[in-house]
Amino acid sequence: MVPQEALLRLLAGLEPDPAAGAGEAGDQASEFGQQPPGPRLGIGMDSCVIPLRHGGLSLVQTTDFFYPLVEDPYMMGRIACANVLSDLYAMGITECDNMLMLLSVSQKMNEKERERAMPLLMRGFRDAAEEGGTSVTGGQTVVNPWIIVGGVASVVCQPSEFIMPDGAVPGDVLVLTKPLGTQVAVNAHQWLDQPERWNKIKLVVSKEEVKEAYQEAMFSMATLNRTAAGLMHKFQAHAGTDVTGFGLLGHANNLAAQQRSEVSFVIHNLPIIAKMAAISKACGNLFNLIQGTSAETSGGLLVCLPREQAAKFCSEMKSQGSGFGGQGAAGGAWIIGIVEKGDRRARIIDKPRIIEVPPRGSPAANQDNSTTSPAPSPNVS
Amino acid sequence: MVPQEALLRLLAGLEPDPAAGAGEAGDQASEFGQQPPGPRLGIGMDSCVIPLRHGGLSLVQTTDFFYPLVEDPYMMGRIACANVLSDLYAMGITECDNMLMLLSVSQKMNEKERERAMPLLMRGFRDAAEEGGTSVTGGQTVVNPWIIVGGVASVVCQPSEFIMPDGAVPGDVLVLTKPLGTQVAVNAHQWLDQPERWNKIKLVVSKEEVKEAYQEAMFSMATLNRTAAGLMHKFQAHAGTDVTGFGLLGHANNLAAQQRSEVSFVIHNLPIIAKMAAISKACGNLFNLIQGTSAETSGGLLVCLPREQAAKFCSEMKSQGSGFGGQGAAGGAWIIGIVEKGDRRARIIDKPRIIEVPPRGSPAANQDNSTTSPAPSPNVS
Repeated sequence: MVPQEALLRLLAGLEPDPAAGAGEAGDQASEFGQQPPGPRLGIGMDSCVIPLRHGGLSLVQTTDFFYPLVEDPYMMGRIACANVLSDLYAMGITECDNMLMLLSVSQKMNEKERERAMPLLMRGFRDAAEEGGTSVTGGQTVVNPWIIVGGVASVVCQPSEFIMPDGAVPGDVLVLTKPLGTQVAVNAHQWLDQPERWNKIKLVVSKEEVKEAYQEAMFSMATLNRTAAGLMHKFQAHAGTDVTGFGLLGHANNLAAQQRSEVSFVIHNLPIIAKMAAISKACGNLFNLIQGTSAETSGGLLVCLPREQAAKFCSEMKSQGSGFGGQGAAGGAWIIGIVEKGDRRARIIDKPRIIEVPPRGSPAANQDNSTTSPAPSPNVS
Repeated sequence: MVPQEALLRLLAGLEPDPAAGAGEAGDQASEFGQQPPGPRLGIGMDSCVIPLRHGGLSLVQTTDFFYPLVEDPYMMGRIACANVLSDLYAMGITECDNMLMLLSVSQKMNEKERERAMPLLMRGFRDAAEEGGTSVTGGQTVVNPWIIVGGVASVVCQPSEFIMPDGAVPGDVLVLTKPLGTQVAVNAHQWLDQPERWNKIKLVVSKEEVKEAYQEAMFSMATLNRTAAGLMHKFQAHAGTDVTGFGLLGHANNLAAQQRSEVSFVIHNLPIIAKMAAISKACGNLFNLIQGTSAETSGGLLVCLPREQAAKFCSEMKSQGSGFGGQGAAGGAWIIGIVEKGDRRARIIDKPRIIEVPPRGSPAANQDNSTTSPAPSPNVS
């Protein structure tokens, strides 16, 4: 992984040059006509929003690619696609006009492995795209030492179709639509075959629990955030982002920094795939799950909602049972914190409440009532 | 490289399932509304064209990424950007609404190397985007064994803004807007430091000539095909593509296969960076430059023009001197063949005429008159 700061420093190279600033924009305007009016969103958030030359429309698009983290190529394809689409969903966008697929075949695979795995991976990607109401019309494939899978999602929409992620106000409530802990689950599952590693966590978790958590993580990552995107409109969300590589706190910080009002985000509750918090603690500082910086893949949406809407949002998420692989507690949403007046940063309180989210299908999943827990008061601990 | 057939077989996995065909399309139509009308172009050609829900507009987009092939990171950034934009230009599109950048940093680079090279690469990419009248608003960066650079180019346009690549008719003339031989030049340049390799070609080329050819290839690859895209409209082009990884013949075949009329493409002339044909011959079957399958990067447009327009297209290309790094013969275009009645394939005649294109800046560059050569008759040899 590139550290977040190093990455942002690199990306700063893409922002318009602040020194040349006005001049450069001026040059471009004079040569190619005025830039169309409308909201514009660039580097740093999930998607970019580009006002178009045509009647108030905007192009919203995003790209993401990474390396496989589950063994099942079909599920990996689904996860990669869900992960790309999630950046649109984070803005309350439910439609996608087109997807491109980015792929590299590993040079270490022989032809037989390639012909078995890659079509499955592509099929998973395509199926998830279809579930999102869109299709894959192109892409690029190269050979690389490692397998890469990712894509590009694009949509042209009216201003009413997307929610700019900058409208949070003090008093809002923070909701998260998937449990945390996918990275921990994927790693713990790999350790089943590595006695050295396994010995470090075997006191806090059973093999069966790790297998269930891995399944849960895989299904959760393969679940589209599309239902949540639709509900963002229904319940007047003020802002949203999705939780991926920088972890919950990293993305919460990014979102807080975007806000028009002087607000801060305070997180009190951490919904986590069952047992993953215990594993993370047993591993010392390896994951930083409780600290909020453990990477997630295709994580949930983090949404700022008016206080009176948050519980309704959560219960509707649960009743729609949007999870891939059938209904269950994971097709839910959790109130995790509040929006206060502040300096556009996010923090997790000292001893956050850990909500253990049971794997779908487990007996505990049907008793879970966390989605209806009341909004916390600032001094919950 | 993935062989072209293997790649197409892989990509076939993305096309709508022919067996499920109607049913699948039907499901989608019933669930998400009818697909908007309008021309649609999918996998196999340079860009995809997606009819939108909004007033006759289409989304045209493309992606491409690969590995560095020149040593100068700034030039490599320019080349990567020119290469992506070229897929839009191939359809006669001169504008681009948005670009995303795809990047991987090599894990073999230390922090110092990374901080020196990557900003230059990004700056080159960004500068070329600005030259194309667009800007980079997002992207994705990962760490990988190898450096990867590429991007996504998207534009929303009226039907009049793009030329569907399917209108060639018998009697048309084929024009190419950049010389061939970039791969040979890049490789020969690397061989300057590899005595074993160099010994194989030193009888046909001098070190100075290789250095000049490498410079020429670098400038040529960094040149946007935007001027050519504009002239495709002015001179009523019937179809176009750009020449990249599959070589001139590979892309000519792809384009021929797309045509509505039963036509074939016959190529008589090969404009090639000076001395590269000799190197290719000296290397046996290593490049297949004369056979038309030597890969190019950010190559020229291959355009089908009405016979009476082709020479004018070429002379205007030359007079506009669109080449990066100043005017010269390379800012030109060459008539390379004709469109006949046929079975939608392309071929190169037995002994094609090699047009040696001198590097820009060389004395020979100013005497070149190949852009005004008359359209060949079918039995030129």
